Amino acid sequence: MSSKTIAIIAGVGPGTGAAIARKFASAYPVALLSRNPDTYIPIVDAINSSGGKAIGISTDVSDSKSVKGMVEKVKHEYGNDVKCAAAIFNASGAFVRKPFLELTEEVLDASYAGSVKGSFLFSQATLPLLLAATTPSTSTPTPPHPPTLIFTGATASVKSSALFAAFATMKYALRALAQSLAREFGPQGVHVAHAVIDGVINVPRTQAYGLPAEAKIDPRAIADAYWHLHTQPKTSFTWEIDIRPGVEKW
Amino acid sequence: MSSKTIAIIAGVGPGTGAAIARKFASAYPVALLSRNPDTYIPIVDAINSSGGKAIGISTDVSDSKSVKGMVEKVKHEYGNDVKCAAAIFNASGAFVRKPFLELTEEVLDASYAGSVKGSFLFSQATLPLLLAATTPSTSTPTPPHPPTLIFTGATASVKSSALFAAFATMKYALRALAQSLAREFGPQGVHVAHAVIDGVINVPRTQAYGLPAEAKIDPRAIADAYWHLHTQPKTSFTWEIDIRPGVEKW
Amino acid sequence: MSSKTIAIIAGVGPGTGAAIARKFASAYPVALLSRNPDTYIPIVDAINSSGGKAIGISTDVSDSKSVKGMVEKVKHEYGNDVKCAAAIFNASGAFVRKPFLELTEEVLDASYAGSVKGSFLFSQATLPLLLAATTPSTSTPTPPHPPTLIFTGATASVKSSALFAAFATMKYALRALAQSLAREFGPQGVHVAHAVIDGVINVPRTQAYGLPAEAKIDPRAIADAYWHLHTQPKTSFTWEIDIRPGVEKW
Amino acid sequence: MSSKTIAIIAGVGPGTGAAIARKFASAYPVALLSRNPDTYIPIVDAINSSGGKAIGISTDVSDSKSVKGMVEKVKHEYGNDVKCAAAIFNASGAFVRKPFLELTEEVLDASYAGSVKGSFLFSQATLPLLLAATTPSTSTPTPPHPPTLIFTGATASVKSSALFAAFATMKYALRALAQSLAREFGPQGVHVAHAVIDGVINVPRTQAYGLPAEAKIDPRAIADAYWHLHTQPKTSFTWEIDIRPGVEKW
Repeated sequence: MSSKTIAIIAGVGPGTGAAIARKFASAYPVALLSRNPDTYIPIVDAINSSGGKAIGISTDVSDSKSVKGMVEKVKHEYGNDVKCAAAIFNASGAFVRKPFLELTEEVLDASYAGSVKGSFLFSQATLPLLLAATTPSTSTPTPPHPPTLIFTGATASVKSSALFAAFATMKYALRALAQSLAREFGPQGVHVAHAVIDGVINVPRTQAYGLPAEAKIDPRAIADAYWHLHTQPKTSFTWEIDIRPGVEKW
Repeated sequence: MSSKTIAIIAGVGPGTGAAIARKFASAYPVALLSRNPDTYIPIVDAINSSGGKAIGISTDVSDSKSVKGMVEKVKHEYGNDVKCAAAIFNASGAFVRKPFLELTEEVLDASYAGSVKGSFLFSQATLPLLLAATTPSTSTPTPPHPPTLIFTGATASVKSSALFAAFATMKYALRALAQSLAREFGPQGVHVAHAVIDGVINVPRTQAYGLPAEAKIDPRAIADAYWHLHTQPKTSFTWEIDIRPGVEKW
Repeated sequence: MSSKTIAIIAGVGPGTGAAIARKFASAYPVALLSRNPDTYIPIVDAINSSGGKAIGISTDVSDSKSVKGMVEKVKHEYGNDVKCAAAIFNASGAFVRKPFLELTEEVLDASYAGSVKGSFLFSQATLPLLLAATTPSTSTPTPPHPPTLIFTGATASVKSSALFAAFATMKYALRALAQSLAREFGPQGVHVAHAVIDGVINVPRTQAYGLPAEAKIDPRAIADAYWHLHTQPKTSFTWEIDIRPGVEKW
Repeated sequence: MSSKTIAIIAGVGPGTGAAIARKFASAYPVALLSRNPDTYIPIVDAINSSGGKAIGISTDVSDSKSVKGMVEKVKHEYGNDVKCAAAIFNASGAFVRKPFLELTEEVLDASYAGSVKGSFLFSQATLPLLLAATTPSTSTPTPPHPPTLIFTGATASVKSSALFAAFATMKYALRALAQSLAREFGPQGVHVAHAVIDGVINVPRTQAYGLPAEAKIDPRAIADAYWHLHTQPKTSFTWEIDIRPGVEKW
C-alpha cells in the first residue's frame, strides 16, 4: 500500500479543531487546515511528537485555488491514491452581531465566503477522497468505519435571532448543505453529519466571558461525539446531533 | 400630503409576482421590479389601465448600485417622503438540480447573489421606508395596516433534498434572514413574514409539467395569503405560513 | 334544500372561541360547544339577536357519548343531511405548570382527555360532515369554500419547556393529529390546519397578567386568520400558521 | 457500599431492547422490564451466564401499581439505596396504521397508555434514582458518567403521516416529554435524550419485510449510540440524535 487513508480537518485553532485533530490523529494520519499557520503549528507538533502523523496546510477554504493546492499537498505527502476516512469542516465566517441596518454588503459576503463557499469547496475537494474510501483497493488501506464528512454548526443553525442576520443566514445554509449531501452521499456509503453546537465552547477565546466551566462545552466532548459518529456502521447513520451544557437554557 | 405610501414588489413576472402586484395595487400605488422590463411591462400596463397606479423599474436586486438607483426612482415618482406599506421579495436565484460534484462555484455564487444578496439588499433598501410608515407624518399617508415585509420561500426552505445543494442552501439562508428580521423589526412595528410555497405554482412556465390544475398552487391564492398577512394587526403577526395543493404529497 | 351547512366550534368561552364563533356566524349557522352552558349562552344570544343563527350544545368533547349526543342535536336542529363548512377545535386540557415529580397521573390523564381524546372524538364526529360538504347534493347547500377543520395550538405545540411536561406533551400530540389529518383528508378536499398561538391572548382571564394591550394577541385577529384559512381554495391550503404579538420575544 | 448503581431498561424484547441491555450490562447490573417474561428471560440468562448481572421484572409500564412494584423489586435486589446510572424507555404502544375514521377510541387509549402514560410513569419512577446518582454517598457507588434517561422515538416522532394519527400523536407526545425533562433535569445533572430511530430495525420481527440487511438499522448500533450519549460529560449533553440506514430515503 503506497498511499495513506487520512483525516482532513478544516478550521484548526486552539479549541474545537485541535481537540478533533488529536482525536482523529489517534487513528489516522491527519492534514490540518487553517489560514494562519500559527494556529495549527502547535497542534501539528504535538501530534508528531507523541507518535502520530500530522501535516499543516495553510488554506483559505473560500478560495478554490487554495483548496486545490491543499489537495495537491495532501497527495504529495500521503500519496496519489490517498483516501479520506474523515473530513471535518470546523471553519466559520466571522461571528457578527449587529443591527441589520448597520450590516454592510462586505460583512454578508465575508460570512458567505467563510461558511458557505468554504464548506462547498471543502466538500467538493474531499468527497472524491471519501468516496474512494468506500471501495477496497490495493494502493491504500480501507478505513475501519464508513468514511465520514462532518460539519460544525451552532445555535444559529436552527434559530435565527435578532441581530444575527449575517451569521445565521450562513449557518442555516451550511446546515442545508449538510442535509443535501447526507441524502445524496449516504446511499453511496459516505456518512454526512451536522452538529448543532448550542453553547459557548471552553476554548482560550471564551475565557473572557467569565462563565463557570460547567456552563461551557468541552471541546474534547465534541471530538468524542464526532468520533462516535465516525464509528457508526452504514446501516445506522446519524445526520444531526445537538450538544449543549446541561445547565444551558434552551 | 406630497408623498405616497406604496408597495414595492421584487420579482415580478407573469405568475406569482404579477398576482401579488395586482392584489396590492388595489390598495396602494406600486413599484414593480424585475431585471428584464419585458416581464413587468404587461403588468404595469394592466394596472395603470384599470385604475391603479404602477411603475416598473429594471433592477438587479443583487447589485447594490442597481438597488440604490431603484430607491431613487421610487422617490422621484412617489415623493421624497415616500413610505412603504408593503415590500415583497419574490425573486430567486436560478433553480438548479444537479449532482453535487457537478455543481460549479459559479452556480453557487449565482444562487447566493439571487436569493441571499438580493433579499439582503432589498431589505436594507425597503426597511427604512417600512419603518417610516410606522409613525404618522404630515407628508405621507399612514397605511391602514402595519407595514409588512414578506419573503417567498419554497419546499427547499425547510427540506434540503439530494441534488438541491445550491438551491436549498440559499433558500434556508433566506428563511433565516426573514426570521432574524421578524425578531428585530417586529417590536418596531414592522411585520416580517416568510411563506413556504410547497408545490408547483400554476404559471405559464409550469404548463409543460402536465399536472392537472388542482395539483398546482393558484398564484392568486398566494397573493390573497400575502394580503391577509398584511392586514394582521401588530398584536397578531404571523411569521410563517406554508401553502400547498390539497392533493400534494408531503 | 332541507338541511343546513354550518360551522361547529368546540371550546367557546368569552375569548378566542367567542371571536371565532362571531366570525363564522356571519357566514353560516353555527353550533357552539362547551361543557358549561354559561360560557356559550351570552355568545349564542348575541349572534341570534344580531341576525345570525346559533345554538349552544353542552358537550364534553372527551366523552364519546357526549360527542355523539352533540351530533344528534346538530342534526335535529339543522337537518339530517347537515353538512359542515368549518369545524374548529379550540378546546384544551387545563394548563399546568409544575415540577415533573409533582405531577400526578390524574393531571396527565386530564390533559390527555381534554386535548388529545377531545380533538380525536371531535374530528371523528365532524369529518363525515366535512367530507359530505365536498360534494354537491340537493338536500344541503354546498359551501363557497373547501370545508375546513382547524385546531388551536400554543407555544407548547412546538417547544416543550421545563415544567410543561403534562401540557406540552398533549399540545405536541394535537399538532401531530392535525398534521396526519391534513395529509389524509387534504387529497379528499377537506382543508385541515393548525395554528400555533404563540403568546398571551387578550381575553378576560388574562387581564390579571398586567400586560399592555400591544403585548396580547387580539382574539379577533385569530378569528380573521381562521377565516382566511377557510377561504383558501383547494389548490392552496395552509397547514400551519403561527400568530404572536409583534413585541413578543421568541 | 451496600447498594448498587444500575441500569433499568423498559421494553426489552429480542431486538433493540436486548442490544441495549447487553451493552449497559457490560458496565452495570441491570433490571430488564417487559410485560411478558418470555421476552426478557433469554436476555437475562445470557447476561448472567456471561459474567454480568441481570434481573427481569414483569412490568406493565402503563400501570402505576405495576411500576411501583417494579421499583420495590429493584430495591429488594439491588439495595434500598440503589441508584440509577441509566434508565432507558424503549417501550411503545402498538403500531397502528389505519384510516382515521376506522380508528377506535380504544386504539387511541392503548397508544396513549403504552407510549405516553408508560414513559411518564417510568420517568417518575426512575428520576429519583437518577437524581440520587448525581451526588456521592457512602452507601452506593457514584457512576462514572452523568446519570442518563433516554427515550426511543421513531420517524413518527417528527413526521405525522396520513394513517398514522394514533401512533404519531403519541410519538410526538413522547418527544415533548423528553424535551421538557431535558430542560428541567439537565441543570440538575441528569442527562435526558431522545433518539429518532428513522427506519426499520434489523430484528426478528422485521425479517418478513424482505429488506436487505444494509437497509435495516443494526440494534447494536442503537445500543452504541445510547452508550455514547451516556458517556457525555455534563458540559456536553446531546438532547436528540437521529439514526437511519445510509440508503434510507428521507
